[in-house]
Amino acid sequence: MNSLYPRFSFQTQYQDKFSKAKVATLVTPHGAVTTPNFIFCATKAAIKGLTPAQMKEAGTEIILSNTYHLMLQPGGKRVERRGGLHRFMGWDGPMLTDSGGFQIFSLGHGSVANEIKGKRLTHRQKTLLKISEEGAVFKSYLDGALHTLTPESSIEIQRQLGADLIVVLDECTPFHVDKSYTEKSMHLTHRWGLRSLEEFKRTNSGQQAIYGIVQGGVYPDLRKIAAAFVNSHPFFGIAVGGSLGATKEQMAEVVNSVMNEISPQRPVHLLGIGGISDIFNGVREGIDTFDCVHPTRLARHGGALVRPDFWLKNDGSGGEHISLKGSRFKDDDLPIDESCPCSTCKTFSRAYLHHLIKAQELLVYQALTIHNVTFMNRLMRAIRTAIIENRLEEEQKNWMQV
Amino acid sequence: MNSLYPRFSFQTQYQDKFSKAKVATLVTPHGAVTTPNFIFCATKAAIKGLTPAQMKEAGTEIILSNTYHLMLQPGGKRVERRGGLHRFMGWDGPMLTDSGGFQIFSLGHGSVANEIKGKRLTHRQKTLLKISEEGAVFKSYLDGALHTLTPESSIEIQRQLGADLIVVLDECTPFHVDKSYTEKSMHLTHRWGLRSLEEFKRTNSGQQAIYGIVQGGVYPDLRKIAAAFVNSHPFFGIAVGGSLGATKEQMAEVVNSVMNEISPQRPVHLLGIGGISDIFNGVREGIDTFDCVHPTRLARHGGALVRPDFWLKNDGSGGEHISLKGSRFKDDDLPIDESCPCSTCKTFSRAYLHHLIKAQELLVYQALTIHNVTFMNRLMRAIRTAIIENRLEEEQKNWMQV
Repeated sequence: MNSLYPRFSFQTQYQDKFSKAKVATLVTPHGAVTTPNFIFCATKAAIKGLTPAQMKEAGTEIILSNTYHLMLQPGGKRVERRGGLHRFMGWDGPMLTDSGGFQIFSLGHGSVANEIKGKRLTHRQKTLLKISEEGAVFKSYLDGALHTLTPESSIEIQRQLGADLIVVLDECTPFHVDKSYTEKSMHLTHRWGLRSLEEFKRTNSGQQAIYGIVQGGVYPDLRKIAAAFVNSHPFFGIAVGGSLGATKEQMAEVVNSVMNEISPQRPVHLLGIGGISDIFNGVREGIDTFDCVHPTRLARHGGALVRPDFWLKNDGSGGEHISLKGSRFKDDDLPIDESCPCSTCKTFSRAYLHHLIKAQELLVYQALTIHNVTFMNRLMRAIRTAIIENRLEEEQKNWMQV
Repeated sequence: MNSLYPRFSFQTQYQDKFSKAKVATLVTPHGAVTTPNFIFCATKAAIKGLTPAQMKEAGTEIILSNTYHLMLQPGGKRVERRGGLHRFMGWDGPMLTDSGGFQIFSLGHGSVANEIKGKRLTHRQKTLLKISEEGAVFKSYLDGALHTLTPESSIEIQRQLGADLIVVLDECTPFHVDKSYTEKSMHLTHRWGLRSLEEFKRTNSGQQAIYGIVQGGVYPDLRKIAAAFVNSHPFFGIAVGGSLGATKEQMAEVVNSVMNEISPQRPVHLLGIGGISDIFNGVREGIDTFDCVHPTRLARHGGALVRPDFWLKNDGSGGEHISLKGSRFKDDDLPIDESCPCSTCKTFSRAYLHHLIKAQELLVYQALTIHNVTFMNRLMRAIRTAIIENRLEEEQKNWMQV
């Protein structure tokens, strides 16, 4: 492996005594990430509303961008000519790009994003025109132009973007397909995975490391096959993708069936998952990194992530966030969270944030995003500390009602 | 005067040898402002897109908020209960509020804002229901509810808001009214000015200072009468408001006719003006502070303020700003201005800012606002230095094509 990834390493620092949870260090050419950690989505080469400096100040170690969006605008070659994604967007820390497959299949089949969490299909214009052994043909969401994405072209574009961590192309199957389709699709994903790996080896500069991907839908036996496949090839890391089921219990079972197969020597990323209980469950299964648009998207809808003590001190209605839109905040002089060190909680009251939402002031998106990013980074830091101190179970009570 | 304004002072530090331009220090309970300076518009108790800390970092010394917007939402009493505007919005520096009159008459008559710059009336829903000796009755732009603003109630609301500098209620006449209406309106403004001053004295806490206002439209003889009136009463400062004419020449004449009447012992604010040539002209006439939504609004439309050397190095087409929307920037790796110390110019290329606009990313509004605020603060600092060094004429060439 070292010859493929000379500038990368993944080292367990502390193994939890009660579960597969571990604290580890993932070293990339742009610095180290301590895991478990959360990867924030800079979908189109920008965190929505925050500068790279603000992300750093909020404790962020790693972000991701989406190949699908960037290949269409401004284009992989253009980003390469600008010096790559790091330089283009001014982020000098570790970064991941996905393969582009998720969005092609998500927009093509309907919303896979919802399906990962077991939600029902919503109607969308279908943009996926063809899936073949070669790759996928789809229409651009911007101008309707036809594009083909193959395992090789996905790697080529991810080379142009230049993120530290890149991902093989997979077919991301929708929730409603049957086991037979899921199985066929999984094998296609494996063939695409090997082609991606070959293309990676052929063009390897030593500056990037590639993740294989585990599909297999909600079927634990397929997930085991997929995990064993990825395990047996020299991918640097492993991403767990696709539909994880309709309930939290099903997600836990699927993740468990994958993680029982995977050796802890490689970093494992759980794609698109960012709920607090899902993170605690994933960490216990040995998942090292998570990503989700939730913390930043929630901020743009006026929501702030809070710990259960918010509800204990207030009306007790519970939940992982509060909506500052609510008129009950209009005379509330407290910050979102008195114990939060973020600049929003140090500067603004709930009443002021409520006012900004009512007045439709741009500032509120930035302010809530800073809080939610800080919240996720504090959560992950607390999880790492708790693993080292063998009190993960106890720590969970500080972050969710259990 | 000192007994009325125990915590305020205005002291000339340097008088230009060639014009009425001067560098002075305006001291308020929330700190000092060195003039000439620019007051940024935090209309609804927020600079659009920037935190108070970002405003400070961009070199800002003073901001303003609008009584009209805040009296309707969240309401003067509510801001007072939150500890006043400074505490509510987290700005601890000098601050000004206007009287609320401008927006009532602007929305009521059509767009006075455009008329100040000599632009034609645009159709708007009329919300001004009645002007009488007592005050103005208008409909809220939010819910249509009826409100009355009088000289006394404007002072009361500005007391609740708690800005350092407050302004008397005036009638802001539209561009199209004749001299006879303008003259009658001016006298109404004077009577309102005296009532405002009386109410100010009655409730004076020593924490605020009041500005009188000079109206009189485009008629130099009326402007002289208005200036002499304000001069003869113990207002701390003087604001020049209303329509300044259809051309830059007319504006220069009107401002000249006012400033010939006004002694340099009081700070003079030119309301709603922020063009670079207008600022240089105003400074030469002895204007101390300016305000305008232009720098922050321009940013939200993708525009960045630039100096003439941008055009000399590029295509020579001239102007005070560039639009980053333009596709000619898509491969441009330079920052907006290589000599600009702002975080945007230190971090992002024109190509990246262009990409953010194309991708409709929130971040671009923040990034361009930081640049434009920094630009205005650098401009004002350069003007102050040039006055002290007796080279204002020469300095002007660094900021505009003359």
